[in-house]
Amino acid sequence: MSTHSTAIVGGSGFSGAELAELVLGHPSLRLAQISSNALAGTPAASSLPRLRTDLTFCAHDEVGGVECVFLCLPAGASAPIARRLLAGGTRVVDLSPDFRLTAEAYERWYGLHPYPDMLPAAYGLPELHREQISAAGLVANPGCYPTAALLALDPLRELGLREVVIDAKSGVSGAGKAPSERTHLCIVDGEVAVYGQDGHRHYPEIAAGIGLCGAADDPSLLFVPHLVPLQRGILETIYVCLTETPSVDSLRAHYRETYSSEPFVMLAEAPPRLRDVAHTNSCRLWLTVDEASGWVVLIAAIDNLGKGAAGQALQNMNLMLGLPEWEGLLR
Amino acid sequence: MSTHSTAIVGGSGFSGAELAELVLGHPSLRLAQISSNALAGTPAASSLPRLRTDLTFCAHDEVGGVECVFLCLPAGASAPIARRLLAGGTRVVDLSPDFRLTAEAYERWYGLHPYPDMLPAAYGLPELHREQISAAGLVANPGCYPTAALLALDPLRELGLREVVIDAKSGVSGAGKAPSERTHLCIVDGEVAVYGQDGHRHYPEIAAGIGLCGAADDPSLLFVPHLVPLQRGILETIYVCLTETPSVDSLRAHYRETYSSEPFVMLAEAPPRLRDVAHTNSCRLWLTVDEASGWVVLIAAIDNLGKGAAGQALQNMNLMLGLPEWEGLLR
Amino acid sequence: MSTHSTAIVGGSGFSGAELAELVLGHPSLRLAQISSNALAGTPAASSLPRLRTDLTFCAHDEVGGVECVFLCLPAGASAPIARRLLAGGTRVVDLSPDFRLTAEAYERWYGLHPYPDMLPAAYGLPELHREQISAAGLVANPGCYPTAALLALDPLRELGLREVVIDAKSGVSGAGKAPSERTHLCIVDGEVAVYGQDGHRHYPEIAAGIGLCGAADDPSLLFVPHLVPLQRGILETIYVCLTETPSVDSLRAHYRETYSSEPFVMLAEAPPRLRDVAHTNSCRLWLTVDEASGWVVLIAAIDNLGKGAAGQALQNMNLMLGLPEWEGLLR
Amino acid sequence: MSTHSTAIVGGSGFSGAELAELVLGHPSLRLAQISSNALAGTPAASSLPRLRTDLTFCAHDEVGGVECVFLCLPAGASAPIARRLLAGGTRVVDLSPDFRLTAEAYERWYGLHPYPDMLPAAYGLPELHREQISAAGLVANPGCYPTAALLALDPLRELGLREVVIDAKSGVSGAGKAPSERTHLCIVDGEVAVYGQDGHRHYPEIAAGIGLCGAADDPSLLFVPHLVPLQRGILETIYVCLTETPSVDSLRAHYRETYSSEPFVMLAEAPPRLRDVAHTNSCRLWLTVDEASGWVVLIAAIDNLGKGAAGQALQNMNLMLGLPEWEGLLR
Repeated sequence: MSTHSTAIVGGSGFSGAELAELVLGHPSLRLAQISSNALAGTPAASSLPRLRTDLTFCAHDEVGGVECVFLCLPAGASAPIARRLLAGGTRVVDLSPDFRLTAEAYERWYGLHPYPDMLPAAYGLPELHREQISAAGLVANPGCYPTAALLALDPLRELGLREVVIDAKSGVSGAGKAPSERTHLCIVDGEVAVYGQDGHRHYPEIAAGIGLCGAADDPSLLFVPHLVPLQRGILETIYVCLTETPSVDSLRAHYRETYSSEPFVMLAEAPPRLRDVAHTNSCRLWLTVDEASGWVVLIAAIDNLGKGAAGQALQNMNLMLGLPEWEGLLR
Repeated sequence: MSTHSTAIVGGSGFSGAELAELVLGHPSLRLAQISSNALAGTPAASSLPRLRTDLTFCAHDEVGGVECVFLCLPAGASAPIARRLLAGGTRVVDLSPDFRLTAEAYERWYGLHPYPDMLPAAYGLPELHREQISAAGLVANPGCYPTAALLALDPLRELGLREVVIDAKSGVSGAGKAPSERTHLCIVDGEVAVYGQDGHRHYPEIAAGIGLCGAADDPSLLFVPHLVPLQRGILETIYVCLTETPSVDSLRAHYRETYSSEPFVMLAEAPPRLRDVAHTNSCRLWLTVDEASGWVVLIAAIDNLGKGAAGQALQNMNLMLGLPEWEGLLR
Repeated sequence: MSTHSTAIVGGSGFSGAELAELVLGHPSLRLAQISSNALAGTPAASSLPRLRTDLTFCAHDEVGGVECVFLCLPAGASAPIARRLLAGGTRVVDLSPDFRLTAEAYERWYGLHPYPDMLPAAYGLPELHREQISAAGLVANPGCYPTAALLALDPLRELGLREVVIDAKSGVSGAGKAPSERTHLCIVDGEVAVYGQDGHRHYPEIAAGIGLCGAADDPSLLFVPHLVPLQRGILETIYVCLTETPSVDSLRAHYRETYSSEPFVMLAEAPPRLRDVAHTNSCRLWLTVDEASGWVVLIAAIDNLGKGAAGQALQNMNLMLGLPEWEGLLR
Repeated sequence: MSTHSTAIVGGSGFSGAELAELVLGHPSLRLAQISSNALAGTPAASSLPRLRTDLTFCAHDEVGGVECVFLCLPAGASAPIARRLLAGGTRVVDLSPDFRLTAEAYERWYGLHPYPDMLPAAYGLPELHREQISAAGLVANPGCYPTAALLALDPLRELGLREVVIDAKSGVSGAGKAPSERTHLCIVDGEVAVYGQDGHRHYPEIAAGIGLCGAADDPSLLFVPHLVPLQRGILETIYVCLTETPSVDSLRAHYRETYSSEPFVMLAEAPPRLRDVAHTNSCRLWLTVDEASGWVVLIAAIDNLGKGAAGQALQNMNLMLGLPEWEGLLR
C-alpha cells in the first residue's frame, strides 16, 4: 500500500510533537520531513524521545516535495509558507490562526494580512464543514476554544440564541511551549487564572461560528478563558438563554440525533471529564436546563492538543486525502 | 492579659485544623480543648504535626466550660451541640450549614431541622452583617461559595440584578477530608469536574443573600461549581446583567467606596489570583464591563479554608468577643 | 484473520482499564469479556467512557471459554481464578503478586498460599525470561518497582554487586483506585511521601531478581519507595557499589549491547523523563559513575501502568500466543 | 518599642517576597526598603499583592542607611553589595552562595571571587554555628539542600561516616522565578526530573559540612537532586553506612537529645511530610536502621523557602541582633 508523504513544519512545539506521534502511527501517511528552525540539524528523537524516528529536523524553508503538510507555527509565520507550498500542489492544514478569519476580522485582531485574498480558508471543523474541507487545498484548523464552543453551540442556533456566556478552562499547554511567567509551575500550580480579559483572539472565531454579524439583534456573547493547573484539556461551561427553551429531553434528543453518525462527537450521559477525552480526538458534550430560569447549561470537553489541535488537523487531512476520516485517530 | 478559653469541636478535619493553628497564634484566645470522636485520647500533634500544642483530642461531648467554641462538623451534627453549649452561655460559631437557612429553605434542602425556632442564626458575613454578629451568641458561618459570591454581588443589588451566572471553581479541600473517588489524586488531577448539576446546597444561601424571594420577577440565578486540581482556594467568575449598566469606572469607584474601610475585602487592580489570598482571610475582587453586551464580569477570589471557613469564623468570634476584628488574622 | 478471544478479570481498576484499552486496539486480540463484581451488569463504557465497547461487566466467576485472560485483582484474589482457568486450558497472565514468589518467600510476606505447588510461575519480565514465558500457561506479571529495578540492575550482576540502594518514586496510581487518605489530593499534592518503611512487598521480588539468597556475602539491598504527586510513572534512582567499577564508557557500551535488540528497553543519552515513557511499554535507562566514590548511579523510568503493569502483561501474552512481541504496543 | 530598620535587596523573587512577608509580620523589625532593579519605581504590592505595604521598589544601589539587610540575589551579584553595606556597619544576611565556601572551593565551582579574603563568612546554620552567627556582621545563609542534609547528618559524624547517599527531592521554587523550560508546568507536571548529574553547586557545601577534606579515607558522598512537581518543600532521603551502627533506639535517643532544646529541629515519630513544615522554619527528621544491611535511613523535610531560605535568614538576623531566635517565626 502506498502512503502519502507528509511534513510537519514546526515540529518541536506541543502541537507539532503531538502530530508527529500521530503521523508515525498512521497507516496511510509517512512522515518524510519535520522542521524546526531552532533545532535544525539535530535528530528529532533527541528532543522528542517519544518519537520512533531517525529523522533530523530541517529548517522550515527546506520543507517541500511532499503531498501533505501540517503547519504548526505561531500567528503570522504560517501564511508565507502555506502560500509557497500551495503553489506546488501540496495539501496544507494550517494550525495557526492565519487563515481562520475574514480579512476584515483578521485586520481588527491581528493587523494587516499579507494575502487577504486567501481569507478565509476552509474552516476545518469537519462536523460542520465536511464538504468544503474535502474539496480544499488549504484548511484552517480551528482554535481550541472555538472547537469546543462551536460543537456545543451549533445545534442550538436554530432555536434562537439570545445570550451566550462561555466560561472556558484550559490546561497550560494551550499557552504554548515558550517559557513565560504564566507557565511557571509555581505561578500556575494551585491557581485558576483569568486571562484575556481585554479580549481573546478566539473571540472573533466563535462569534463568526455562531453567526454574529454585528447587527443590533445579535445575541450577546461573553467569553472568559481561564488557565487551570493541568497539562492538557479544555472544559467549557456554556450558559445559553434561548428565544424559547425546549424540554431537556427533547434538547438531548436533538443533540443525539445531530451527532449520531459522528465518530468523534457525542452527548454523554453525565458531565464529561477531561480524562474521558485526554489523548483522543473526541469531543464529549452534556447539557441540562435550569428549571427556574430556563437557561441551558452545556458542558464541552476536548483535549486541546487532540480535537483542539493535532487530532483535528489529522481528521482534516484524512478528509482532504479521501481517507477514512477516523484513520489513525481511533485510540 | 487574660485570654478567652476556646474549644474546637471537630478539630481533625481541614477547617478544624486550620482554626486550631489560627487560635494557637491568636494573642487573645487560648486553645483549651480540641475534639475528635475518632481520635479521642490521642495527642493532637500526632495527627496534626503542625500544631504546637500538648493537647489531647477529647470527645465532642466532653467539650464545655469554655468561653467560645467553633463547631467544625458536618451538616446535622452541629445543631444539638450548639444548643447545649449556648444554654451554658458559651459563644458559638458554627461552620456547618445547620443554622444558615430559614426553616423553610432548610427543610427543602436538608430535611427537618431539630430546632426550627433557632433558624436562621446571625449570618456570619461581617462585611454585610456586622452588628447582628456582634450581638449574637450563635453565628452561622457562611458557606465558602456564598462568601465569595455575596461579597462580589452585594454592591450590585441596588443597581437591579436581572441575570446572574456564577461559575465557581474550588480546590479539593472544599470536598472535605473523607477519602472518596472524587478526591482521589488520579481522578481529580488533570481534571475540571462539574458537580452538583442537580442542585448544590449552597444555592439557597446565595439566593437568600441576593434577595431572591420566589417572586416572578426575581433575577435569574445560575450557579455551577467545579472542582479543580488544587488544594485550597475558590475563584468565582460571575456574569451579571443589570437593569442598567453604569460605566466601568463608576462601577469600580462604587466597589472601592463600598469596601474602603474593610480590612479583608478589596477591589484589585487586576484579576486576582488564588495565591494572593491563600492562607489569608482576604477576599479580592475585580470587575469589568463587556462593551458589546453591557454585562458585568466579576472575579472573586478567596481561600476556601480562610475567608471561606476558618478565617471568617475567627473574624466572627473577634466581633462577638469585642476584640479587634482583624486580631490574629493579619498575615 | 482470526483473533484470540480475551477476557479481563477486574476491569474497573487502573490496570484493568488500561489493559482494556490496549486489547481493544490490538489487531490480534478480541475483547470478549470484562468483569467487575461491583459493577456487574452495567455497561463498561458507563464507568470507563474511554472504552469503545458495548460490553457489559460480568462477575469474575462468569469469565470463561476464552483463549486468554488477564487477571487484574488484588493479592490473594487471583490464585483460585487462575487455577480454574488454567484447568480449562486458558492462557493466563496474572498481574497480582499471587504467583511471583517462591512458596517460602510468599509465606513470609503474605501468609500461606493456597496452592504452593504452583509457585513460582514463570516470571513475566520478557527481556530476562523470554523463553520460559513463551512456553508458559501461567505468567506472573512483575510488580512495577521490580520491573524498573531489575531491568536497570541485571546487566550489573556479572560485575559483582556489593551495595544496592534503590530510591523509588511512584505516581499515585500505584496505590490503586480505592480511595484512602494517602490518595486524597489534599494529602498527596505538594508532598513526597516515604512509605513502606517497615518493608515493602516488592522487596522480595527485587531481592530474588538480583540473586540474593540469604547468604552472608549477599550484597546489601535498600529499597525505599516514595509517592510523588503525579498520576503515573515510576522513576528509580539506583546507587550501586560494584566489586570493581568499569569506566563509564564501557558500562554504557555494555548496556547498549545488552539491550540492543529489545524494542522496549534502551539506554538513553540523558536522564530519562517520565513523559518519555508515559502511556508506553518502554523502559528508559541512564547511568553515570561518580568519580570520587566509584559508585554507579542508574536512572530507570517506566510508566507503572504500562511497562509496570498492563503493557508488560500484553507483551507477555503476545509471547505466550506466538504473536510479535510488540504487537499492539508500539505507540 | 523601637524596631530595627530593615531592607530586602532582590525583593521580587521567591525568597525575597517570602522574607518581605516575614519582616512585615515581625514585631521587632521594620521593613524600610525593598529593591528590585527590574521593578524599581513601582509599588511593591502591585507585583506582590500579598504584601501589606505602601513601599515602592527601589534599585539595589539605593539601599542603605538601615540596620539590617537581607540579600536575595543570584550568585555573584551579592558580594559587591554586601561589601558596601558592611563598610557602613549594616548587618547582612546573604542568601546567595557568594560567601558560603572557602576561596579554594569557590573558585573550583564558581570561578574567581572578587573578595577572597572575605571567605568564608559565618555559616548561617544556627543549630550548628550559633555563636559565630551571633557575633558576625555578615552571615552566609546556607543552601536549601545543605540545610536539610547537615541537620540530618551532623549527629552521625561522631559515629564515623563511611558511605553517604543523599537522594534529594525539591519543589520547583528551588529553581528560581525566572521562567525556563524546566519550570514550565507542562514539563515538570507529572515528572520527577533528575538534574545536576554533572555536579550540583550545593555539593561542596555539604561536603564541607560533613568534614570531607579531600583525604583518601574521606567517606563517600553521593548527592543526586530531583525536581518534583510541587511548589515548595525539600525531602531528602539519606542512606548512611557507619563504621559501627548503634541500635535504632539509641540512635533515635541521640537525635532527640541533640535537638532537645532547638525550637525548629526535631525527630518526628513517623516519616515527616512536607505539609508538616510548609510555610514554617522547621526541619523535621526521622530515621530507621535497615536490619539486614545495618545502613541508616534518614528522612529530612524542610520548606526550601522557609528553613531553606527566608526563615533561616530571619533566624540568623534574630541572632545577630540579639533578639529571641524564634521571633517572627513561630507560626
